[in-house]
Amino acid sequence: MNHAVIARVIGLILGIEAVCMLPSFAIALATGGADSSAFAISISLCAAAFLLLTRVRPHSKRFQTRDGFVAVALCWIVLGLFGAIPYALCGFSYVDGVFETVSGFTTTGATIVPAPSALPRGLQFWRALTQWMGGMGVLVMVLALMPSLGEGSVNLMKAESPGPISSKLLPKTSETAKSLYIIYIALTLAETVVLRIAGMPLFDSLTTSFTTISTGGFSVRDASIAYYQSEAINWIIIAFMFVSGVNFGVLFQVQRRQWKDALKSEELRWYTLITLGMAGLIAANLIVRAGKGVYESVSESMFAVVTLMTTTGYATADFDLWPYFSKMLLILVMFVGGCAGSTAGGVKVSRLVILLKNLRRELRRILHTREVRPLTLERERVAEGTVSSVSVFFFAYILITLLCTAVVSLEELDFTTAFSAALTTISNVGPGFALVGPTCNFSFMTTLSKIVLTVTMLLGRLEIMPLLVLLFPGAWKRK
Amino acid sequence: MNHAVIARVIGLILGIEAVCMLPSFAIALATGGADSSAFAISISLCAAAFLLLTRVRPHSKRFQTRDGFVAVALCWIVLGLFGAIPYALCGFSYVDGVFETVSGFTTTGATIVPAPSALPRGLQFWRALTQWMGGMGVLVMVLALMPSLGEGSVNLMKAESPGPISSKLLPKTSETAKSLYIIYIALTLAETVVLRIAGMPLFDSLTTSFTTISTGGFSVRDASIAYYQSEAINWIIIAFMFVSGVNFGVLFQVQRRQWKDALKSEELRWYTLITLGMAGLIAANLIVRAGKGVYESVSESMFAVVTLMTTTGYATADFDLWPYFSKMLLILVMFVGGCAGSTAGGVKVSRLVILLKNLRRELRRILHTREVRPLTLERERVAEGTVSSVSVFFFAYILITLLCTAVVSLEELDFTTAFSAALTTISNVGPGFALVGPTCNFSFMTTLSKIVLTVTMLLGRLEIMPLLVLLFPGAWKRK
Repeated sequence: MNHAVIARVIGLILGIEAVCMLPSFAIALATGGADSSAFAISISLCAAAFLLLTRVRPHSKRFQTRDGFVAVALCWIVLGLFGAIPYALCGFSYVDGVFETVSGFTTTGATIVPAPSALPRGLQFWRALTQWMGGMGVLVMVLALMPSLGEGSVNLMKAESPGPISSKLLPKTSETAKSLYIIYIALTLAETVVLRIAGMPLFDSLTTSFTTISTGGFSVRDASIAYYQSEAINWIIIAFMFVSGVNFGVLFQVQRRQWKDALKSEELRWYTLITLGMAGLIAANLIVRAGKGVYESVSESMFAVVTLMTTTGYATADFDLWPYFSKMLLILVMFVGGCAGSTAGGVKVSRLVILLKNLRRELRRILHTREVRPLTLERERVAEGTVSSVSVFFFAYILITLLCTAVVSLEELDFTTAFSAALTTISNVGPGFALVGPTCNFSFMTTLSKIVLTVTMLLGRLEIMPLLVLLFPGAWKRK
Repeated sequence: MNHAVIARVIGLILGIEAVCMLPSFAIALATGGADSSAFAISISLCAAAFLLLTRVRPHSKRFQTRDGFVAVALCWIVLGLFGAIPYALCGFSYVDGVFETVSGFTTTGATIVPAPSALPRGLQFWRALTQWMGGMGVLVMVLALMPSLGEGSVNLMKAESPGPISSKLLPKTSETAKSLYIIYIALTLAETVVLRIAGMPLFDSLTTSFTTISTGGFSVRDASIAYYQSEAINWIIIAFMFVSGVNFGVLFQVQRRQWKDALKSEELRWYTLITLGMAGLIAANLIVRAGKGVYESVSESMFAVVTLMTTTGYATADFDLWPYFSKMLLILVMFVGGCAGSTAGGVKVSRLVILLKNLRRELRRILHTREVRPLTLERERVAEGTVSSVSVFFFAYILITLLCTAVVSLEELDFTTAFSAALTTISNVGPGFALVGPTCNFSFMTTLSKIVLTVTMLLGRLEIMPLLVLLFPGAWKRK
């Protein structure tokens, strides 16, 4: 392992974290909040660590897949540990602070804050900004800003980007990272403007855009999006959440006006189909079982399906009160998640498509004695190694969800609460059902549960392998 | 597809079903029950179908993997449809009868009978016997009885026997089938004798042995095994359930006094380890949380873990009242199931071991850039095709469980009830939690739920693929 490069990367990440805390510090100063000293201390600590770690001079720039995985895992852990300092200095326990920060960076949106509107403004901004930083990936930001991290920089991106197949959009990693960030920033600004026009206050528009485009789901309002009581705002947010759940490779094609290629995307079609199908079924269920009106049912089911499937996790209606069939379908979309290469979490649509095609292939194999046909996705052959990795990923996903449920149920929480807490954290959604439903929060949980759920959020965001690799002694050996 | 051979096999199966109904008919006559005419009619119908179908003369004896899968799937469906006739003639609805019969043949043990002790004796015996017939596999019985079904007869066994790798213990399929049945019968007789000595009435001893060795779980008593109020009986049943969850290949070695080989079995070690580990954790949880005594906790947790992990499903204590952590661990063991090549259901220990080893291999691959080492089980290399099939199986298992949960929740059942109903049927366990807990039954459900759960039981017992293959038009084509 290239220890020196990894130390350097962690240093850079902390430098970025210090810089990203500056706007919050400014807001804290401007609003005269009690959080200004908290941010001053936090920024100093991050900056000190940055200065210390970036003094390390690597002998070689060699950077393998393994190093990429380890670096990404460590960076995210360190980001969470340092990002929690402002919370800890504002009166939260450190474990709660780490939970909230990791929930931010992983764009989960599960919260231990009972009333976000009561937080000081600077901390509100920091809370939203962690989601925006984590959405596209903080290391992707490093790559965009410092093009010459070394030959192996693609391994950093591979380890941090979600999805079964990672491809570069442009020949250079740094160029790819830059173009991704341009789309990301453009979407964020666009949503801010549209929300402002729709009547949302500027601070709310900006922080909401941060947490929509990153599919994070934190809100500065206690009632989340339901606070604004505006159908226009609901539909604007539905649209932007949906777009943020699309593969950024497709958005890149749209940006270059390659409409035909973009619309041909197989994953996009499945994603749209699942969204509309599930929303349709739930709307029908709400009309028949809950006796709601047609428009209300369609609007509420669309919001719930899109917000849970893109793993954003805002709330307009309290879907925990919906009929059980609707709730079960919402659990299914929480598993599915958005497209690969988007800011959304979950298993990802393309992985599910690969798994379904693999199942069909297995059945064909039984029918036609051992004929093995290659599997295709987006009209390209999927390598057998990828199919195998996807299967391993799925198994690990279910295993971790069930084990996490078991640990959480140690504190005598019912199955629905424990299971949905595990699922909502590994899928980076935010709210679950029952005691962790959309009108509740995670503050009542024991420290053990909070730590386990924090780790589960990281496992979900980094797609499991980078963190599990850390458990092997081989990961720590110097080459 | 070789239609003629398949028709013939179905005919044979119905002939066996007719013969197996004879003891129930005799008991019905002897006890003067109202069920004697029911069995007379059922036997005549099965016999008529047998005579009709065995008149078909196959042109060729060619019998491929595909034919094996289709034949097995159709046989099990037909067995369920004909086996339900006695229930239907004794006052149950036909759907309930099919549910109960399929629950029997698949050794699930989920019941729609509120009070089994009130059933006529003949029907009680038939109910227990369906589990005994289904445990080892009815087609294995055909193979044992008629050695010359054709060259492809191994394909029948492959499709019906549970587990990822099917191997013949003896060179000839029919010899293997026979030796399996000898062990099966010996265990059943042994348990009957031991239970009788422990004070259980003879009828109860025999029917309980039928449902223990097949890991079925039906009981002639309303309170299941709790009725007998005997610690000796509990521990006898624990022992026999545990043995029935062991790979019959291992039992075959024991029978031949190859003790060393038997104890070397990797799957056996994992199976023992998981059983003891889970029972230990639950016992600790019961002592600490529920304030139970040490002996009581150990005894109850051992019974619950063994009965659910071997997917038998008897009840002594109402584990639905236990702390949530214990319940969650019980859900985990319901997933796991027994060993491959045993009468138990679930994912099977060997499949889980393969999945875990595959996960470890994937992590090693990341650490040591693409080095692919073969996976081993029982000191033998596992073919990559098998690893892939196991992964597909796991995905299908989870997918079916979740979809089944969604359909069941259509009738407004809470998540715990719906999910545990789906899990307990696909794993062929029997009881679940909440409304389908160990003191409840499935009679209150809608027809739709009953049909879906019946199909799920069949999917679980036949390990999914044979039934899914039927959905492909290719399965129905002549050659």
